[in-house]
Amino acid sequence: MPVLLTTDQALPLSDLLQAANTAGLAYEVISTAGPEPLIRGLGSLRHAGPHEISFLSNQRLVDQLQHCQAAAVILAPDVYQKLEQPLPYYVVSCSHPYVFYALLAQWFDQHRLANLPSGIHPSATIDETAVIESGVSIGPNTVIEAYARVGAGTRIGANCVIGREATIGQNSLLYAQVTLYHQVSIGSRCIIHSGAIIGADGFGFAPQPNHPDGAWAKIAQLGRVLVGDDVEVGANTTIDRGALDNTEIGNGVKLDNQIMVAHNVHIGEHTAIAACVGIAGSTHIGRRCTIGGAAMLSGHLSIADDVDISGGTAITSTITGPGRYTGVYPFAEHTDWQRNAAVLSQLAGLRRRLRALERSGNT
Amino acid sequence: MPVLLTTDQALPLSDLLQAANTAGLAYEVISTAGPEPLIRGLGSLRHAGPHEISFLSNQRLVDQLQHCQAAAVILAPDVYQKLEQPLPYYVVSCSHPYVFYALLAQWFDQHRLANLPSGIHPSATIDETAVIESGVSIGPNTVIEAYARVGAGTRIGANCVIGREATIGQNSLLYAQVTLYHQVSIGSRCIIHSGAIIGADGFGFAPQPNHPDGAWAKIAQLGRVLVGDDVEVGANTTIDRGALDNTEIGNGVKLDNQIMVAHNVHIGEHTAIAACVGIAGSTHIGRRCTIGGAAMLSGHLSIADDVDISGGTAITSTITGPGRYTGVYPFAEHTDWQRNAAVLSQLAGLRRRLRALERSGNT
Amino acid sequence: MPVLLTTDQALPLSDLLQAANTAGLAYEVISTAGPEPLIRGLGSLRHAGPHEISFLSNQRLVDQLQHCQAAAVILAPDVYQKLEQPLPYYVVSCSHPYVFYALLAQWFDQHRLANLPSGIHPSATIDETAVIESGVSIGPNTVIEAYARVGAGTRIGANCVIGREATIGQNSLLYAQVTLYHQVSIGSRCIIHSGAIIGADGFGFAPQPNHPDGAWAKIAQLGRVLVGDDVEVGANTTIDRGALDNTEIGNGVKLDNQIMVAHNVHIGEHTAIAACVGIAGSTHIGRRCTIGGAAMLSGHLSIADDVDISGGTAITSTITGPGRYTGVYPFAEHTDWQRNAAVLSQLAGLRRRLRALERSGNT
Repeated sequence: MPVLLTTDQALPLSDLLQAANTAGLAYEVISTAGPEPLIRGLGSLRHAGPHEISFLSNQRLVDQLQHCQAAAVILAPDVYQKLEQPLPYYVVSCSHPYVFYALLAQWFDQHRLANLPSGIHPSATIDETAVIESGVSIGPNTVIEAYARVGAGTRIGANCVIGREATIGQNSLLYAQVTLYHQVSIGSRCIIHSGAIIGADGFGFAPQPNHPDGAWAKIAQLGRVLVGDDVEVGANTTIDRGALDNTEIGNGVKLDNQIMVAHNVHIGEHTAIAACVGIAGSTHIGRRCTIGGAAMLSGHLSIADDVDISGGTAITSTITGPGRYTGVYPFAEHTDWQRNAAVLSQLAGLRRRLRALERSGNT
Repeated sequence: MPVLLTTDQALPLSDLLQAANTAGLAYEVISTAGPEPLIRGLGSLRHAGPHEISFLSNQRLVDQLQHCQAAAVILAPDVYQKLEQPLPYYVVSCSHPYVFYALLAQWFDQHRLANLPSGIHPSATIDETAVIESGVSIGPNTVIEAYARVGAGTRIGANCVIGREATIGQNSLLYAQVTLYHQVSIGSRCIIHSGAIIGADGFGFAPQPNHPDGAWAKIAQLGRVLVGDDVEVGANTTIDRGALDNTEIGNGVKLDNQIMVAHNVHIGEHTAIAACVGIAGSTHIGRRCTIGGAAMLSGHLSIADDVDISGGTAITSTITGPGRYTGVYPFAEHTDWQRNAAVLSQLAGLRRRLRALERSGNT
Repeated sequence: MPVLLTTDQALPLSDLLQAANTAGLAYEVISTAGPEPLIRGLGSLRHAGPHEISFLSNQRLVDQLQHCQAAAVILAPDVYQKLEQPLPYYVVSCSHPYVFYALLAQWFDQHRLANLPSGIHPSATIDETAVIESGVSIGPNTVIEAYARVGAGTRIGANCVIGREATIGQNSLLYAQVTLYHQVSIGSRCIIHSGAIIGADGFGFAPQPNHPDGAWAKIAQLGRVLVGDDVEVGANTTIDRGALDNTEIGNGVKLDNQIMVAHNVHIGEHTAIAACVGIAGSTHIGRRCTIGGAAMLSGHLSIADDVDISGGTAITSTITGPGRYTGVYPFAEHTDWQRNAAVLSQLAGLRRRLRALERSGNT
C-alpha cells in the first residue's frame, strides 16, 4: 500500500474511526490484541500491514482473515462471532463494514487533498471579469475565461480550461486537464477527472438542399450543459452541450471514464454508468439506473427509473419499466462461434422449415 | 435558453433573417402579430421565449405550435396553410425550415465567436520559425512548435499544442486542449473540439525473432495525417498518423466524439460518423456514408460510397455496394435473453437436427 | 512520403543499414543498379521515391515490385531469387524484412527525436522537491508536482501534468498533454501518447444505508498504477488507480488508443491490446495475449496466458486456456438482419418445438 500518513501523522484507531465516521454508523471497537494501534493507512485483507486498518465485506474473502497482518479489521458482528478468538488484531464491529471502509477511504483522501498547495498559482490566467470565491485553489496554467464563476472551496488542478460564463459550485474538485466549454454549469461537491470535456458541440448537421455531393450544414449548438451536485465525471468522458435546450445531469449521478453523453440527454438522479458507455442524442434516462460498461443507447429513447442495463448491451428502444435488460452475444472458442454464427443468417428460414414440418406432422 | 444577444444587440426579425441566410434560401415573412419583433435568440418550440425565433421541421411536433411563446416561427408553407389563423407570432414561410434553423444557429454562434478575445495571448509559446498568418487568434498557454503554419483567420483556443511542421488552413477553429502531432495537416474552415488528438502513432508492432517471451518491436509511424477542408472532429476523437503512407480524411467529413481512426484509414468526402466508432487500420470508407454510434470496422476493408452502417454494428468484411447494413444483438429482459442466448451455441446442431427430420419426413 | 532527412543528411545505404540494425539481423546488400544510393527516407513499395528504401513482407504485394521507384528494397532471399534480374534498385536480402523495416523506421524516428529541442522549457512549472535526472527534456507549460521523479534521458512534451510523487524511469517518451496522477509509476523506455490519463480514480461506490433516494458513497481510490518497462500507451487511453491494491501493467505491454483499464486490473507481460477495448475492474489478463479492437472484458475475470480475443467480443467469464475466442453478431443487409434477428427471441421455443418433433418422429 502507498504510505498515506507519515509516522508522526499516525492516529490512534479510535480517533481515526471517530473522525472518519461522518455518517454516524454504529460500531464497537473490540480490543483483543494489546495496546490501541496507531493507524497510518488502509489496506486490503491480503496486503494491509501492521499500521493499517482493513475490512471484510465480501464473505468469499473470509479465509483471508487468518493471515491478515492488519492492526485492525472492520467486520460485521455475525462474522466476528463465528471467528476463533482471540484474534491477532483489533476488531471494529459494524453492520456496514463496506460503508465504513468507504468513509475511511474518503478520510484518507481528504487528508491528501488538505496537504496539497492551496491558493491560485501565479501562472494561471484568470480573466478580470471572472468571480473566484473564497478558499479556491487553482493550479498552474489553468485558464478561467470571462464571466466564469468558481464557488468557495473548489479546487481546480493544473492546465484546466474553464470557458466563458461557465460556473462551478462550492467544494468541487477538478483534476488536471479538465475542459469546460462556455456556459457549462457544474454543481457543488462534484469531482471531475482529467480529460473530461463538458460542453463540446453536439453532433448535428442538416443535409444541404442543392448540394448533390452530400455536403452537410452544421447545426451550431447553442444549448448548455447543466450538471447537478455530487456528480462524478470520469477521465476522458465527454458530455455535449444541447442543440437548443440543455443537456442535463442530475444530482448524485456517477459517470465512469470514456463515457459519451450526447446533446440533450437527461440523466436522472443517482444513476451510475460504467465506462465506455455511449448515449445518443435526446435520450432520457431515469433515476437510480445502473448501466454496465460499453453499453450503447440509441437516441430519442426514454428509460424508466430503476432500470439495470447489462454491460455491452445495445438499447435500441424505450424501456418503460424497471428490471434488468441484456443483449450480448455469448463468446465461444472461435471455431465453435464460427459454426454457430453461420446459422444466424438462416434463422428465419429455419423457423419456416420447422413450421412446415410441424404442419406436415399434423396432417 | 441561454442569452445569445443582450437587449441592445437585439435585431429586427427581417435584419436577422437576411444576415443569417447565407445560402440564399427563398422565404417570406408573414406578419400577423403586431410590430416587427426584435430577436435576441433561438429556441425550441417548447422553450423559446418572446424575444426568440423558433422553427418546425419535425411534423410530430406540430402540436407544440399551439403553446409556442416565440416571437417568430419558421414553417414550411404547407404546414402554415393548415394552421388556424391568425397566429400569435410572426411566421417565416420557407420550404427548408431545418436548413434555415441551421443558418440562424450558425449566425448566433458566429456572433459569439466574434466577441471572443482576438490576437495572440502573451502566455502562448510560439516558435520563431512558425508562420502565423493575419487575423489569427491563439489562446493562453498554447504551444506552436517549429515550422508550423497557421492560416489567416484561424482561431486556436487555450492550452493547445500544434506540433512541429503541422499546418492549419484558413478560418479554422480549434477549441481548447487540442493536440496536433508533428506534420499533421488540417484544412480550412475545420472545427476541432477539445481533447482531439490528431497524429499519434498508429498501433504497429512486429513480433521479434529470437524472443521467446513474445516481446514486440515497435514499427515507428512515419506517415502523416491529412485532414481536408470543412471537416469537424469531435471531443476526444483520435486520428492516428500513417505507418508510411498517410491517414486521410476527406473534405466535409464530420466526426463525432470519441471516434478512433487508426493508421492509414481513408474517409471519403462528406461521410458522417457518430460517436464511439472505431475504424481499424488501412480501412477505406467511401463518400457520403453514415456510420451509427459505437459501430466497429475491422482493418483492411473497403466500404463503398453511400453505405449506411447501423449503430453498434461490427463490420468485418468489405462492403461493395450502397445500402444499409446492421448486426446488433437485440436486447431483452435479462432472463429471456439468458434462455434464448443459451441456444446460440447449439445453432449448428439445431440445423443438423432439422435437416435430419426433413429427410426422415421425405422417406 | 514526408521528408525524413534533408539532402545533406542523406546516408549511404550501407551506412544506414548498419546504423539501424541494432538487432544484429543477418543481411546482404546486392548492388545491381549503379553506384550506392544515398537514402533520405523510408516508403511503401507503392510510394517510395528514388531516395527512399522500401521493403516487401506481405507476399500479396509482390506485383508492386515491378513499378517500385525506391532506391533499395528489403526482400526475403527466396523472394529475391524468383524475380527477373537485373532489378532497377538495390536489394537488401534478409530473412526478416518486416523486422528490418521496423528497425529502419525506429532509426528515422530516433533521428527526428534527436533534433527536437532539449532541456527544460522556462515555462515549465517544476516543484522544488521534484527530482529531475540528467538529460531530461521538458516541454512548455508542463507541470511536475512535488516529490515526482523523472529518470535520465526521459522526454516530456508540452502541457503535461506529472502528479505528486509520480515516477518515470529512464529514456521514456511522453508526448504532449499526458496526465499522470499522484503516485503513478512509469517504467523505462515507455511511450505515452497525448491525452492518456493514468491514475484517475477507479469507479467505486457503496450504496448508502438509510438513503432511500439511492445516493452513493464514494470509495476513495487509494491504490496506485504501476506501469512496467517498454510499455506503450495510446492516445486518450485511461488507466485507473487501484482502490486499495494497485493496477499493474506488465513489461512490454502495448496499449492502443482509447482503451479503458479499470482499477485493480493486471495485464501480463507483452500482451497487446487494440483500440477501444474496455477492461472492467479487478480482471487479470495473462501474458502474450492479444485483444482485438472494441472487445470488452467484464470485471473479476482471469484470462490465461496466450489467449487471443477477437475484436468486438464481450468476454463475460474466465478463460482458463490459450486459444482464440470470439462472439460477434455477423452483420448483414439491414432487412435480412431484421428478419433473422426477430427469431432470436424465440430460440428456446424453437429448440423445444424441434425436440417435440423428434420425439413424435421416434414414436
